[in-house]
Amino acid sequence: MAAEQDPEARAAARPLLTDLYQATMALGYWRAGRACDEAEFELFFRRCPFGGAFALAAGLRDCVRFLRSFRLQDADVQFLASVLPPDTDPAFFEHLRALDCSGVTVRALPEGSLAFPGVPLLQVSGPLLVVQLLETPLLCLVGYASLIATNAARLRLIAGPEKRLLEMGLRRAQGPDGGLTASTYSYLGGFDGTSNVLAGQLRGVPVAGTLAHSFITSFSGSEVPPDPMLALPARQGPSVDLATRVEAWLERVCAHLGLEVQEPHPGERAAFVAYALAFPQAFQGLLDTYSVRRFQVPWLASVPIAVSNNIGEEELAQLAQEGSEVNLIGIGTSVVTCPRQPSLGCVYKLVSVGGQPRMKLTEDPEKQTLPGSKAAFRLRDSDGSLLLDVLQLAEEPPPQAGQELRVWPRGARESCTVRPAYVEPLLRLWVQRGQLCEPLPSLAESRAFSQLSLSRLSLAHRRLVQPAQYQVVLSEKLQALVDRLSAGGRP
Amino acid sequence: MAAEQDPEARAAARPLLTDLYQATMALGYWRAGRACDEAEFELFFRRCPFGGAFALAAGLRDCVRFLRSFRLQDADVQFLASVLPPDTDPAFFEHLRALDCSGVTVRALPEGSLAFPGVPLLQVSGPLLVVQLLETPLLCLVGYASLIATNAARLRLIAGPEKRLLEMGLRRAQGPDGGLTASTYSYLGGFDGTSNVLAGQLRGVPVAGTLAHSFITSFSGSEVPPDPMLALPARQGPSVDLATRVEAWLERVCAHLGLEVQEPHPGERAAFVAYALAFPQAFQGLLDTYSVRRFQVPWLASVPIAVSNNIGEEELAQLAQEGSEVNLIGIGTSVVTCPRQPSLGCVYKLVSVGGQPRMKLTEDPEKQTLPGSKAAFRLRDSDGSLLLDVLQLAEEPPPQAGQELRVWPRGARESCTVRPAYVEPLLRLWVQRGQLCEPLPSLAESRAFSQLSLSRLSLAHRRLVQPAQYQVVLSEKLQALVDRLSAGGRP
Repeated sequence: MAAEQDPEARAAARPLLTDLYQATMALGYWRAGRACDEAEFELFFRRCPFGGAFALAAGLRDCVRFLRSFRLQDADVQFLASVLPPDTDPAFFEHLRALDCSGVTVRALPEGSLAFPGVPLLQVSGPLLVVQLLETPLLCLVGYASLIATNAARLRLIAGPEKRLLEMGLRRAQGPDGGLTASTYSYLGGFDGTSNVLAGQLRGVPVAGTLAHSFITSFSGSEVPPDPMLALPARQGPSVDLATRVEAWLERVCAHLGLEVQEPHPGERAAFVAYALAFPQAFQGLLDTYSVRRFQVPWLASVPIAVSNNIGEEELAQLAQEGSEVNLIGIGTSVVTCPRQPSLGCVYKLVSVGGQPRMKLTEDPEKQTLPGSKAAFRLRDSDGSLLLDVLQLAEEPPPQAGQELRVWPRGARESCTVRPAYVEPLLRLWVQRGQLCEPLPSLAESRAFSQLSLSRLSLAHRRLVQPAQYQVVLSEKLQALVDRLSAGGRP
Repeated sequence: MAAEQDPEARAAARPLLTDLYQATMALGYWRAGRACDEAEFELFFRRCPFGGAFALAAGLRDCVRFLRSFRLQDADVQFLASVLPPDTDPAFFEHLRALDCSGVTVRALPEGSLAFPGVPLLQVSGPLLVVQLLETPLLCLVGYASLIATNAARLRLIAGPEKRLLEMGLRRAQGPDGGLTASTYSYLGGFDGTSNVLAGQLRGVPVAGTLAHSFITSFSGSEVPPDPMLALPARQGPSVDLATRVEAWLERVCAHLGLEVQEPHPGERAAFVAYALAFPQAFQGLLDTYSVRRFQVPWLASVPIAVSNNIGEEELAQLAQEGSEVNLIGIGTSVVTCPRQPSLGCVYKLVSVGGQPRMKLTEDPEKQTLPGSKAAFRLRDSDGSLLLDVLQLAEEPPPQAGQELRVWPRGARESCTVRPAYVEPLLRLWVQRGQLCEPLPSLAESRAFSQLSLSRLSLAHRRLVQPAQYQVVLSEKLQALVDRLSAGGRP
């Protein structure tokens, strides 16, 4: 598989962006002669974030980019050799040098899909050694992307469809890539844009922004912009006395805020004139650090109002109330850092080796894994609303619309039945033995899909506080396999 | 200034990793003829994170790397042109194309320094337009690095100097760079190493790791490693029957944990044999997901014990109690995501333009900035312990050791005096008009410096819960300038 010629490639993960134990395990597999055993891992989460009942799946695009360029460079192999025991067989490093993802197959939820606990976001199969090495980077690429998309979707649900939501958290992110990921996936989750220019350039996210307080304080009032009488381009009307316009505008904004006109900083007029000079068609003024008032052509006619001061879910709910004239909302820290739950806690678990199902047995039922290569279906009612997700063994025939199906809710002692009106297969084949099977949707398409998916979720499940839990159930055959392996039996 | 030839360069920030309003303000400055006005910004925080009384400064290395390679590519300028108004003067884009940081000067706290509210971590001066553009990337590079270093330093204080602390949070980070930043700066703050191989390769952080549960579950017990009788290298003794050793070891570990020997997964023996085969000199076994037991040569003699299950400050305090045999502690989510406070909240404020001090006036005294180009000193007592930090105007003579100094605690109505035994200038000149003035210390040197700095802080300030607040005071001249500007006077 050739490395992708992609302007974003340098932002992607690299093979050594992994935990060292992946490399030590790789050596263990190799030494035991098992490097090429066919294995399958599933990447999933066990609980929905933020106390909600849903998550959005995201990060697949980054995973595919990573897999397609996965190749250890000489320097990478040399570094691994320097941290592994000196008596390690050199043939192991030759194996690493030749490694790529040409044997790796990926099934996944499409970007922007609703995801629920235990349903795989990714199924990754291929040679045991390489699919093990992929664990950490795939978790890194999917976990935060899905968390941010879900966080953004919640904020969008609170704000309603009309408000413009802008992500402005780059400066509060975990370094450059944290910021780029946050901007990309908050857009996928339902935001309208970002302040992050690089996310615009690399990912096509709409960008927006006006000015900060430092622009105002940089003017003392004594600066006279070189051309205070601005000649608008001929087709747009006569020349405009910006200074006079700004005076009138300041008076109006001050009246709106109940401030005395003399209160603004002495440099503010000069700053606004200078800014209007640069943006004659879309003049935005900043009255204080946190209140942005915006004028658009025709001047003084419309006043979209923006705020950006530490907006979390509660503050947004207030702003979204009917009657609020705020219609542009910038959110920084609380969308980017997800303070209520700063990580999604995805896991990547082995479900089969050499075609044999594997299961992690533990006393904690929540941490028990579901064995075997699986398929997943979403069952919908006749009105299109979601009923539940079914996990079953890959070899089972899919559920049939209109036919009764016996299933086992996870952890339940008794089965129940469901009769779906529609059956939607959830996991799509994206990469087969290293080859991309279909083009990935664009970010904007995934964004639209995420909003469509959310609209199909019942209000009880979509509710952000104490929602009804969405059911994920097992087919009878999968349940029987779980029972057999739990009892210590052979697959 | 030439772009740095640096293997890390591609991990660094890029000029467009910025908020759009920096570019719109740049246009505003340029249109007003002020692009080259000499300006100075300070980067600082207003409150120490996590309820503590100190932070560690970090991220300078990344900032310097970013500045030295700062240059807008043609594609960058074209992208900006596509998002700015279509009638923007093309000469502005010519200005951007020629832009670099050859006029930028940076003074900063050395990496790993103790930092306190209001004391600049960075002072950045140069042409107004370019130092404005630097705001977002510098905040992005310093904020998270300093937060993580501080978080790691707190965890180190709790653990004490003897325990080995490993950062293992890559999979919970904000994407690839979030993980790299976390691994780098948790080491700077006092951790011993990381699981993140890339941080080892690019930043020289010691890496460590053993094996995960998937390695165990990949063995069913039927696999026979090709060479169960392992011949150790000749100099290290006779051949060893690994299978027998593993049996004995499992018995001992099970006894230690109070488990029946038959309880382990049927594949565990085979897995441990395979792993021991790969690592004959440093065999580590995993009994369950969260308990790693490690054997080192001579086999079965020493049993360092590691844990890695959701360790936060409270859990670490328990593990650190005397008598605990746990001496290797892996911390993931709680070091990387800083759940108690996921962002430091640094700001970047204009303090002077054209040599004239600037100050942000606001009703909130905490948000008022300190005007003017400043120097900062740390005053120490005769026993070397820290007394307080003094901010003063750059042109003032430094405080003298042994001489009484009159100062104003921030927000106080009365001055007080202090007589330092030692006076330490805090801000070092690292970059002068684009030229690096002295080599940056290595990461390991900064790590040692951070531990030394912390040791000089009194126990009352170092305490993690309800600590005494460390004082930052103003010189009389700086206080007088603040008073004059607050009253609306001219500088």
